Amino acid sequence: MSAEIDSTNDDAARATRLLGELRASIDNYDAAIMYLLAERFRATERVGHLKAEHKLPPADPSRERQQIERLRTLAKDAKFNPDFAEKFLNFIIKEVIRHHEAVASGNSNAGFVTSSQG
Amino acid sequence: MSAEIDSTNDDAARATRLLGELRASIDNYDAAIMYLLAERFRATERVGHLKAEHKLPPADPSRERQQIERLRTLAKDAKFNPDFAEKFLNFIIKEVIRHHEAVASGNSNAGFVTSSQG
Repeated sequence: MSAEIDSTNDDAARATRLLGELRASIDNYDAAIMYLLAERFRATERVGHLKAEHKLPPADPSRERQQIERLRTLAKDAKFNPDFAEKFLNFIIKEVIRHHEAVASGNSNAGFVTSSQG
Repeated sequence: MSAEIDSTNDDAARATRLLGELRASIDNYDAAIMYLLAERFRATERVGHLKAEHKLPPADPSRERQQIERLRTLAKDAKFNPDFAEKFLNFIIKEVIRHHEAVASGNSNAGFVTSSQG
């Protein structure tokens, strides 16, 4: 009986340790993704200003279709769920369009990124 | 007048070229982010199975608060909008919890990733 309890405790301790290790990896991936997203949106921000300057529409459905198709293909290569990849890109695009519209209407507080002086 | 048209055309050509360059960078960032997300969810998937095995709840509010605070701090360091960073993490966490619940209820088609045999 005591051996059984020990084995259960061992099992729980192993699970807790493994959970901690997995969470440490997740935190590292999230940090890497966050810094890449910051650069991604730095480019997006320049696109927004370029579109506003040249009176181009904030959304571009044919570009979006290409992005979605490409990301679904990359997701399959990464053995990642392509539906989730598409959902992720749609979330990003929705935010980007909201941002482009704010830039076009002259809202300077809409920024994804701050300038290096900020 | 002709010079003015030329200058407008030059300007439009420059904008088109710059837009193309920015989009090429965005596509590269998206690919890098997609592959990192795939690894992030590979770890998440293992967390989901571990939680299901050990009957741990799919959501963990104190862990989520820590993740959000940490990502907001990292976002500021990257000169990135911390509110958007939080929105992004909330989107990811919502998907993850949905996934953990599906795993716990025995739905094997809920996977973010496919095994290397798949």
